[in-house]
Order: sequence, then C-alpha cells, then structure tokens
Amino acid sequence: MRIGLGQFNSVVGDLPGNVRKIQEFYTRALKEKMDLLVCPELCICGYPPEDLVLKKHFLEQCTSSIEQTAAACPDMTIIAGFVETDGEESYNSAAVMYGGKVTKIYRKGQLPNHGVFDERRYFQPGNKPLIIDVGGITIAVTICADIWHLKWLADFLKNSMPFDMLVNISASPFGYGKIDVREHVIRDCSLKLNCAVAYCNLIGGQDEIVFDGRSILTESTGKTITKAKAFDEDLLIADIVRTENGKVQIKPLIPAVPQPKNTIDEIYQALVLGTRDYTLKNGFQKVLLGLSGGIDSSLVAAIAVTALGRENVIGITMPTQFNSPETISDAGKLAKNLGIEFLTIPIQSVLQAFDNSLKTVHGWESKGIAYENLQARIRGTILMSLSNKTGSLVLTTGNKSETAVGYSTLYGDTAGGFAVIKDVPKTMVYELARHINTIAGWDIIPSDVLTRIPSAELKYNQKDSDSLPDYDLLDEILKGYVEDDKSAGQLIQSGLPKDIVLRVIRMVDKNEYKRRQSPPGVKITSKAFGKDRRLPITNYYKSGSDMTGS
Amino acid sequence: MRIGLGQFNSVVGDLPGNVRKIQEFYTRALKEKMDLLVCPELCICGYPPEDLVLKKHFLEQCTSSIEQTAAACPDMTIIAGFVETDGEESYNSAAVMYGGKVTKIYRKGQLPNHGVFDERRYFQPGNKPLIIDVGGITIAVTICADIWHLKWLADFLKNSMPFDMLVNISASPFGYGKIDVREHVIRDCSLKLNCAVAYCNLIGGQDEIVFDGRSILTESTGKTITKAKAFDEDLLIADIVRTENGKVQIKPLIPAVPQPKNTIDEIYQALVLGTRDYTLKNGFQKVLLGLSGGIDSSLVAAIAVTALGRENVIGITMPTQFNSPETISDAGKLAKNLGIEFLTIPIQSVLQAFDNSLKTVHGWESKGIAYENLQARIRGTILMSLSNKTGSLVLTTGNKSETAVGYSTLYGDTAGGFAVIKDVPKTMVYELARHINTIAGWDIIPSDVLTRIPSAELKYNQKDSDSLPDYDLLDEILKGYVEDDKSAGQLIQSGLPKDIVLRVIRMVDKNEYKRRQSPPGVKITSKAFGKDRRLPITNYYKSGSDMTGS
Repeated sequence: MRIGLGQFNSVVGDLPGNVRKIQEFYTRALKEKMDLLVCPELCICGYPPEDLVLKKHFLEQCTSSIEQTAAACPDMTIIAGFVETDGEESYNSAAVMYGGKVTKIYRKGQLPNHGVFDERRYFQPGNKPLIIDVGGITIAVTICADIWHLKWLADFLKNSMPFDMLVNISASPFGYGKIDVREHVIRDCSLKLNCAVAYCNLIGGQDEIVFDGRSILTESTGKTITKAKAFDEDLLIADIVRTENGKVQIKPLIPAVPQPKNTIDEIYQALVLGTRDYTLKNGFQKVLLGLSGGIDSSLVAAIAVTALGRENVIGITMPTQFNSPETISDAGKLAKNLGIEFLTIPIQSVLQAFDNSLKTVHGWESKGIAYENLQARIRGTILMSLSNKTGSLVLTTGNKSETAVGYSTLYGDTAGGFAVIKDVPKTMVYELARHINTIAGWDIIPSDVLTRIPSAELKYNQKDSDSLPDYDLLDEILKGYVEDDKSAGQLIQSGLPKDIVLRVIRMVDKNEYKRRQSPPGVKITSKAFGKDRRLPITNYYKSGSDMTGS
Repeated sequence: MRIGLGQFNSVVGDLPGNVRKIQEFYTRALKEKMDLLVCPELCICGYPPEDLVLKKHFLEQCTSSIEQTAAACPDMTIIAGFVETDGEESYNSAAVMYGGKVTKIYRKGQLPNHGVFDERRYFQPGNKPLIIDVGGITIAVTICADIWHLKWLADFLKNSMPFDMLVNISASPFGYGKIDVREHVIRDCSLKLNCAVAYCNLIGGQDEIVFDGRSILTESTGKTITKAKAFDEDLLIADIVRTENGKVQIKPLIPAVPQPKNTIDEIYQALVLGTRDYTLKNGFQKVLLGLSGGIDSSLVAAIAVTALGRENVIGITMPTQFNSPETISDAGKLAKNLGIEFLTIPIQSVLQAFDNSLKTVHGWESKGIAYENLQARIRGTILMSLSNKTGSLVLTTGNKSETAVGYSTLYGDTAGGFAVIKDVPKTMVYELARHINTIAGWDIIPSDVLTRIPSAELKYNQKDSDSLPDYDLLDEILKGYVEDDKSAGQLIQSGLPKDIVLRVIRMVDKNEYKRRQSPPGVKITSKAFGKDRRLPITNYYKSGSDMTGS
C-alpha cells in the first residue's frame, strides 16, 4: 500500500483554494500510484477558523467543499480534515473519501482548550473510533491532540486493536524544540499501540502562529523512518509493506530532506515563513520598517528580505539630534548590505513643531518620558503615512524582552501590522543575527550593530541598561515568569536577585495594556504574548506577593 | 430564615480587598440578624481571573483567602465563590462557610465557553449536587450557567428534590435587554424545580465587561418578589418563611429600589460604571479626550463627567484648517456646559512640518487618505503626549458603527486606553445624547451637535455619508452581520439592498486588523468586538459568497 502525506499551506477561510490544493496533491498522487493520500487537520478551511465556525453559512460551505473534493478525487482513498456539522453541533472531523464520495467520518475526541487553542468553544468531542482498510492495511484514524493523550487513546481504541497503522492529521503549531516532544509522542504512541504511525502536519503562517510541517512516518518499533520538509509544502511518499512477523514496514520512495540545522535555524525559518505568509495572505507585497541602526530592526529587515525579496523591503531612518552618526551610518550600511531601498526622513523639525504646540500646555517640558515617547510616535506616524500612501505593510521591530516589560512606546515603535520578533527575547535576537551572518558567510548585519551597547536614542547618552537589567538576567527572569508561570518566590529561590525579580514582574504586569494593542507576531516560544497568554488588564494581583507579604 | 444577597464590586486579583469586602457585608449582615449571606461567583478573586488561574501561587492564595474569610465570619452561613484547586485541576466553586470553617463546597457543573467566556480553559466541571440546610430551609447551591441549562439542572438535581430554595451565585455580564432573559430563566427554574430562587450577581466593570447586579428573589410560583440595585453595590435582605402549604414565602425587609427606566437608561448606566471602574481600578483619577464638536466625543465627555466628576475630565480641541468654526465653537460650548477644563491646541503647524518631511518621499501628496489619516495621528499623538505628561487616561471616542467598518485611523482616533462607546452603534449614540439632555432637563450636549450632519473634518466639505451608507441602514446591516452572524444572503432576503450589504460586509471583514489593536471598551450588545467575537485577521472567507457565487 502506497501512502502520501500531503502537508500543504492551507489558508484560513479559503475553501475554494484549499480544495484546489488537495486536487493538486491528488493529481501528483495519482501519478505516483498512491493508494492513500493524507491531508492535515481542518485543511479544508484552514486552522484555526475561529468564530467563522459560528456562521451557519460557513459550515454549509465546509460541507459542500469536502463533498466537492471527494467528487473531484475519486480514484484514491483520501483523508482530510474539515468542520463537520449535524445542524446542531460542530465537530473537528476527518473525512475518508473514496469513489467520489465521503465514505466515513471520524470526529476528534480530544479538543485542546489551552494556550492558543479554543476548540471547546466550537466543537463537540467525538466518541467513536474509526478503523478503515486501505489495500489490506488496517488504519485507525485520529486527529492531532488525540495522540497527545495516550492513556485516553489506548482506552478509546482498545476494542479496535490490533490495527497496522495509526494515521494522525494535525495542525500542530511551531514552538522551538517542540519537534522533539512531538517525535517523542509519536514514538510512545507507536510503541503503546504496537502499530506504525503516519503523522501529517499543516504548514504555513496564520496570524500569531506558524505550522512547521515535518510530517513523520514511524514504524511500530518507535523508529522514525522519514520526515517531510520543515516550513514548506511537501508530499512524503512511502510504501507500507507487511513483513513476515505480521507487522508493517515503511519504505520511503525518496531520500529524506535536510532538516533545520539547530534551534536557532528552525526559529529563523519560522520567522521567515510567518512574516511571508502574514504579508502575502493579507494582500501586501511590500513591507517597510524603521531602521535605527540597532540590532532589532536590522534582524527584522534581514528576515523580511529572506521572506519577501530585497525589492519588496524598504528601510527608513528617521533621525533626530539624539541619534549618533554611528547608528545612522549603520542603518545605511545594513540597507546597502541587504540591497534594499533606503530612505532618510529627518524628524527634528516635526519634533520641534509638536514641541511648540505642546508648550502652550502648562507643565509641558522638552525632555522626559513624554518627550521621548513623542519621538517614537512621530516615527510611527511617518511609517504609517508611508504605508497608507504606498500600500506597504509596516513591520514592527520590538523584541519579546521589551514587549514584556513595556520598554516601548504605544503607537510609536509598537505601531505596525506585524511584529516579526515580538516572541524573540533580546538574547536570542543576537543569536539570530549571528546566525544570519554565518549563513551568509559575511557580516550582512554590520558587526558594530552586534557589539554596540543597546540604546533607544531618545535622549543623549541613553542606554537600555539605564532602565532595564542586563538582558541575560532579564531574559532568564522573563522565561521563568512568562513562559513557565513561576512565582517571584520560586524565581528568587532559584537564585535570581530578589529586587530585580520583583521589579521585572511589576513591569510585566502593569504593561498588559500596551501588549493588548500591539500587532500580532510569530509565536516561537512555549508561551507567547497574545492569545497564548490571556491576562486581565485590570488586575490587582501581585505576582510578587508571596515574597513581599502584601 | 433571613437571607442577604451581597452583590459587590469584586476586583480581579484583589484577594485581600475582596476578603475585606465580604467581611464588611458580614458585619452589616450580623446587625441585620441574618442567617445566610450569599456573595457572587468567584468574588474572592474577581471575574474573570483569566490566566491567573494557571499560576499555582494564585490558586494557593485563593484557598487561603476563602479560609481567611471563613475564619473572620464565623457566626453566620456564608456562600461565596472562589477558585478551588485539588492540586491537579481547578474548579469554579462555591464555598459554604460556617463556624469559622469552609464546611462544604459545590463545584459548578456547566462551564460556559462561548462569547466572552473561557471557563473550560481553566476549570473542570463538578458533578455532585449540594443541598444545605439553613434555619430549617433546604437549599440547593448552584453557580451561574447551571441554571441556564434547565433540562440538565433538573436531571442533575432530581435525586435531591424536593428542596425549598435554589441559590445561584453569578457573574453574569450586562447586555442591553438581558435582564428580561435572566428573569425568564429564573422564573422557569423556580417553576420547573418548584422552589424559590435566590440569585446573586456581581457588579462592576472589568476590562470589556460590566456586571450589572440586580440580584433577584423569586418565589416558587415564578414571581419575582424583589430586586437589588442596578450597577451598584447592594445588600438585598428578606425573610424566608414557610407557609401552610409547605412552600416558602419571601418577605423583603426593605422596599424595592428603583430600576433603570428603559433600555437607553440601562446602557447609559453601564457605560458610566464601565468607564469609572476601568479608570479607577487601573490607577487613574483623571481622563482626557479630544473634543471635535461632534456627537461621539460629546457623548463620551458627558459619560466621563458622570463617571468621574467634572474636575477629572479634560477636553482638548485640535483644529486644522479643515475644522469649521461651528464645530470648534460647539466643542467649547459642550466643555462649558459640562464644566470641564478645555484646551485648544492647533495642529496646523505640526501638519505642515510632517507634510514638509514627507514631501521628500516620491509620490507623497498633501491630500488623500494618507494625508487625512496623518491629521488623526497627530491628534492621537498630542493626546498621548498629554497623557504621558499628566498621568491621565485617554478616552477613545469611536462608536461601534465606525469600528465595524474601519472608518477610523489606527493610532489616530483609535488611540487611547479605553474606548467608551466602541460597542454603541451610531444611531444609539444619538439616543444616548438625547437621554442625557432629557435627564439634565436642558441641552447639555448642544442641540447643533445633535442635528449637524456627521463629518470627520479631515478635508473640506467631507461628510460621513461620502464613505458610508446612512447610519440607520448601516446599523441594521451591522446588527444582522455582527451580532446575529447572518450571511449576506439572509440579510438581502430580509429586504436590505444587496450592493450595500456586500460592501458593508467587506469593510467589516477587512478591518479586523484595526480592531485587534484597539483599546478595550464596554460590551453592551449581544456581541461586542473583542474577546466576544474572535475572527482571524488573515482570512480569505467571503461572507458574501453565498450571494456572489465566488
């Protein structure tokens, strides 16, 4: 029996486009004489469809789209995910299609409702296993989270045992290092159920999340035999052959493709795909961004060039008297290295005009936080004006460390349509920049940018370290507090300095309002700001209260 | 048996403050010789606590807070909501306290996960009824949504029947007209279970939602006997007396308080409380807003004055050459009528400075959308500068109609901390303005403001109707599409003009990105933008596709 795992870039809401995509894979699969084509979870409508599922008309179109797919692809068994409705309730389902019809349906049993997931808002869980036979191979059909609850799954399938292979269609978002966890889950599943596993994952960027593909074929020994591409569409083909001991063997038809080299490499690829898909899927071709000569905007520009091509990226430097000649020159150097269009729009005269107007208000001063934020907001306004004029998307350049503690100006440097590195801590920003230079084989990002002491340059001789702890320490605290939900007490007991821990936590807590108005960006860690981490703005809870007694 | 329903303004995360509040009600209840004090759902931690529930330390403090409450209030039975944890899972629970201890716990059985609710993200459902006896009256304890699933509830409680009274502790958010639905649910519940119902609801504003109180006592005949205050703290006291037929009668100790006069009145009160609580609970005393002389900003200013006092509201007019003398004068007149501080900061010179800088970019023009948006962004920047300088919260003045279709400038008129009327359609804005003038007995909001043709005044002779359908029609389409999730086909079949329906739907769909970066505001309709309506930004779905065939 020949199987193909068709991991493709399904677009949310694009029912006709997604149906066409399955047909394309089907055409390739026919040529390859496949018996079974597997496509990802909810690939008919894209993942996650969110409140589209509450629209009756959308549900009807999901049904007609899966029927249309079945009719167009009659000569092979296809398994593909869609939103099923029985008129009352909706289900996250897998359709089994053959002979021009939907022949069987499996409803997902485990509906994740944590992190970025809201499946219980939309779906009812299924409660019936589905075993199908394709070319003499018996197959249990499952969907995504089903295999992440192995104890439940073993119980759920116990009356259906034995079967040769388990198929799992997934929409499993990227997080760095998560591939190892996923492979572990698949290995455990194959061992526990004593069967091969064919795991088919979505690829593509969708608002805050990126799906990384890397579909997997594993034998019942727990051994991963082959893996599809990371962050790209792919059709992974293998023969499933029964051996003398009754088990099935997996024989790939093509050699395995290279996988990301390391963690930083996979993060880089995730950021590139997330940026490309957000831009293009939202109807933009070009992006623009402010280039300060600092590391954050340099990294974002480099990512944008890889994602969209140098001809589609515009860098703008907007100096005031507070910007050093070195950073201005580095911004230009970076733009030249990347080969992108570069504009200089000095904003000193605009700053002066604002200052004159605001001076009429009692107490206004041409210095201090308000005056510093004003500069950032002028830049945000210039970028948005150019965006409105040219139809380019503004990329925001803030990193996770500053997003966490609110070291940013709302409507200033936070302004834009997509915040490429909002989930990348500052220390990782440096790693990514070095990685880019390593891949390139030369200093695309000028070495000065990597070594200069970070500064917002909103007043003379300003340094990030005037307001923030060292980034190594800050990022360690943020990982513990934001990603691992540790309390102040736990962090301090682990050896982190009490005063800084308490200060950082206070900053994170009180800046929820800024994050709420920030653009989306690619999730790459185990917990990103956005729908992954939902905290009230109005919130008296003091997360340091186990240490301060208040 | 004497019962008190203690509806109070519980603050999210303020465990010590909420415990103190219960103690205050307890002290009053003692004086009134009560036997049972009922407090709202999750009142120990506030509702909704969102991802605070994922913090182990928060859960521990919820437990210690409820124990502390029990210890401080020994001489009466108290029922109050808290987050319970068994170390593994969390529950939305009601503690029954007496004699200084938590004596019994009921776990909510029905966990809402629709609209603004995410309870299945946090809680496991309970599966055991709880019947208690207070002074010879048998009571079934339930929590909020439990009574909204009457068929389930009747089955759940069938082995516990009969009992005299059902207590329901709630955190039921306000929506206009919802009080009727709620009373209907309570009536059905009392009739079906043949018991009295004591319903205790939270009050207060929490980010996007407002709780309206109006706790209710209903007899087993389904008759509402008395109701607590709307939008204010209250302690509703009554004697529960057994009659000769075995049923219980409800005898209120104090006459019923006046309720909101009509729908517009209750919406007005909701907006006032929502604005007051967001401002004060987030540590602000003062607010500022741009006054254009138009109806939206006039209404918001009037609401702010009621919410916070005239001394805490600052109005700012920021004219350009495009603002008519009439609107500028009306802004001043309104400020004078309200008795608030009023600043004039002309922005023509700033506009000119921006224009000069941007002219260096090829293709920039001193007209068109980009130039219009620029004016709005200058105003947003001025307001934020004053906010940074003075520590006042900026109120945003956009209504639901323009928020829906994106008739606004991101970081311009959308800039601010709280969007007071973001869920109020334009037609309702007029009703509210007239209501305010009616209450006042004179034209606090100048009559010209109510009659002038709406304009953004970003170019000469601009009118909203150049870009938008008439507001009556627009609001009808928006209600159908946004609140009722109707498709284009359904709206057109109901008699609405096809071309306008399709145009409006397209505008709503493509402006999701703007709404995602907008500040929170008070939910008053059955579906508000924000966590109540969760649509992808990246979204190819054409809600008009049932009519256009695409």
